[in-house]
Amino acid sequence: MINREEILRRWKPDEAERKKLRDISNDLLSKIGSILQREEIDAEPLVVGSVAKHTNVKGGDIDIFVVFSRNYSEKDIGKLGLKIGHEVFSDGREKYAEHPYVSGTIDGVKIDLVPCLKIEKNSKIISSVDRTPLHTQYVLENLAEDKADEVLLLKAFMKSIGVYGSEIKVSGFSGYICELLVINFGTFENVIRMFAKVRGRVLIPENAETGKKFSSPVVIIDPIDINRNAAAAVSLENLSKMKIESRLFFQDQSMKFFEGPLSIKPSQYRDRGAFMRIFRFQRPDLVDDIIYSQANRFQQQLTDLLSSKGFYPVSSELSVSAEFIDVAIETKLVTLPGTRLHMGPPVDDERAKDYIAKWSNNNAIRGPYVIGDRLAVDVSVEPRTLEETVISELPRLNIGKHLNPLKDKLIIIDPSKTKAKYEVLGKFYSRKLIF
Amino acid sequence: MINREEILRRWKPDEAERKKLRDISNDLLSKIGSILQREEIDAEPLVVGSVAKHTNVKGGDIDIFVVFSRNYSEKDIGKLGLKIGHEVFSDGREKYAEHPYVSGTIDGVKIDLVPCLKIEKNSKIISSVDRTPLHTQYVLENLAEDKADEVLLLKAFMKSIGVYGSEIKVSGFSGYICELLVINFGTFENVIRMFAKVRGRVLIPENAETGKKFSSPVVIIDPIDINRNAAAAVSLENLSKMKIESRLFFQDQSMKFFEGPLSIKPSQYRDRGAFMRIFRFQRPDLVDDIIYSQANRFQQQLTDLLSSKGFYPVSSELSVSAEFIDVAIETKLVTLPGTRLHMGPPVDDERAKDYIAKWSNNNAIRGPYVIGDRLAVDVSVEPRTLEETVISELPRLNIGKHLNPLKDKLIIIDPSKTKAKYEVLGKFYSRKLIF
Repeated sequence: MINREEILRRWKPDEAERKKLRDISNDLLSKIGSILQREEIDAEPLVVGSVAKHTNVKGGDIDIFVVFSRNYSEKDIGKLGLKIGHEVFSDGREKYAEHPYVSGTIDGVKIDLVPCLKIEKNSKIISSVDRTPLHTQYVLENLAEDKADEVLLLKAFMKSIGVYGSEIKVSGFSGYICELLVINFGTFENVIRMFAKVRGRVLIPENAETGKKFSSPVVIIDPIDINRNAAAAVSLENLSKMKIESRLFFQDQSMKFFEGPLSIKPSQYRDRGAFMRIFRFQRPDLVDDIIYSQANRFQQQLTDLLSSKGFYPVSSELSVSAEFIDVAIETKLVTLPGTRLHMGPPVDDERAKDYIAKWSNNNAIRGPYVIGDRLAVDVSVEPRTLEETVISELPRLNIGKHLNPLKDKLIIIDPSKTKAKYEVLGKFYSRKLIF
Repeated sequence: MINREEILRRWKPDEAERKKLRDISNDLLSKIGSILQREEIDAEPLVVGSVAKHTNVKGGDIDIFVVFSRNYSEKDIGKLGLKIGHEVFSDGREKYAEHPYVSGTIDGVKIDLVPCLKIEKNSKIISSVDRTPLHTQYVLENLAEDKADEVLLLKAFMKSIGVYGSEIKVSGFSGYICELLVINFGTFENVIRMFAKVRGRVLIPENAETGKKFSSPVVIIDPIDINRNAAAAVSLENLSKMKIESRLFFQDQSMKFFEGPLSIKPSQYRDRGAFMRIFRFQRPDLVDDIIYSQANRFQQQLTDLLSSKGFYPVSSELSVSAEFIDVAIETKLVTLPGTRLHMGPPVDDERAKDYIAKWSNNNAIRGPYVIGDRLAVDVSVEPRTLEETVISELPRLNIGKHLNPLKDKLIIIDPSKTKAKYEVLGKFYSRKLIF
């Protein structure tokens, strides 16, 4: 059996942290209340998210939403939200997800102040954040107070195996999904047992209609909007990880499943006898989800390019930090052979003579010669190095609106030539299930 | 216009050589005649082949057949043939094609003494050599004396572009085909004109029946056996070479087309920026056709092996000399990456736990981890070098009856490490049309 107290000591905020978050929240609510009154704005400040639901892990952020009446337009609430944000935070920074919002810090705690529109259950929304107050309310009404620890255990487990977070970076399970799972199955162990047993898709509720309407690997109908799959973000890979790690957990209920993600030191990297290159951009000042979808595209396009050019990529990894977008790609070659076969027309073809004339001025490495019934030459390959190839082909790639302008600032790093530590290599080398 | 005299000076035996061949032939015919009389054998010696037909190039061999009456069995004529051979040659060596026969030299000229059975036109044969006397007779009766030079020009052209010879080594046009072509089209130029114009298959005679009965790239019905395609040996590649070189010849009628095969010096090899290895066996004492079919198989199987193991073969060449069977293979890699991906079962599969257990004892380079809905590990690759891989996989390959026993005597040469000259590399680097 696992030692629940030990796990909670690690993950659950202590009384001091809880009081601090309460105090900051109450202070902000009252400040925002005053502003709304003073400006005669028909809106209400509300603490939402895990802090409001008492399912927050240590060191978490506070989410405060300003819920506007539906008399306001989306544009209005955007402007008003920013104004309020700048008034309450001395260090407020504007950010943009679906609405613009302001992010600030008080006493070392990060707070997002997000404007939204008041909606009712199952009603049409303008922006997905409009649902958040209803989610908070639903969990407060349906998750018994003594079940918050079950949610924390589940979050600790999911964070440790790397499937926690609905943002594109992770494509995993959100905090709200954790809460819905505990509401549905009662305890952490029951949730894990379900994942250990299930084959194929996860459907909640488990009826034909649920399965028919959505095609995602995990379908959990949102209780406050029956037309929405609350688990749409979960990738097949993360469901698969959750299933196999749940099964492995029941083998010995090891505490390893609650110790946070594996992290291995560069000294533990095993020689893989291949070539590694890191492709680095400075991170543009954009939210993670926008960065990630373009960084993923960059990773895919680089891999495809290296494959089509004959460098034989073996494996790759992406890491986005506050500073950098790093794509690490391991390849079998970093220098191409100096020649490649260039097939020509069949000898019977009208173009055969032109092809021979074109390649006859000693500009072929070998040939023209005949293969079967076709002409061919061996031509020289230029450029031959991976670095030159990427630099010369990069202008042709479309790697997304915000990365395209950075193309000529790409840095290509050979990590074997430096002693620096790279987060992306840490991720690359630590790809391993916990068991 | 080409200078026919200059070409013939190069290729046609001079009067001294013709007299020498005549004298040797006549002497042998009389010696063999005496032996047949003495032993009371119902057979007749006959000079066949190009010497008999006056279409021989310089430095050619003499073929003398002993044509036995059909009262003899194949076994009998084999034995008697060997006996006669050893009596007339002091240095006779037994060889084996379809019949056994004896090969010897007189005055520096190689002579094959071959026993065969007397057959009539269009009749069933026991061995393909039985047709040779009829071929000789047909050409003598149908090729006008002044057309022998046309045949020589055609042979010179075909030898220069590398398509002359019906043996497996070349898979090209036989001397008999050259004679039939000149009989059909009258002159060397007319033959070349036909090849320059034809698209698709060559059919002689050019009727539907010829095309329907045979599927080879070149079909030339044998006048002495209408059920036989005399050009069955010609490969598609050699027909294609003949077509394109014939077209190129008419561009400037260059003398280059009669100067023998291109031969380039090692100093002319252009750096191809890839890895070259030569795989060498000592040549077993067997006729070319047997060696070649097995050597071709060896070349193909080695290439397939290197491909499946991830060395990425680019190009290869085969050369069989009196001493060696050499296969040269150019590859992109000579050392494999140290790891490779090993896909496991889907996580939903019953075998998933066993797979994890199997790879959990630190014997994977990375993982087990999850890709999509499947388990995977990166495993170490062993052996990594091309040399070790070939040596360890060779026992599993079937490279033919006579090469299989030589497997453990394979030598792998890195030509960049030696200054020796290799015929196979000369062939490899000189693959080029004449124009």
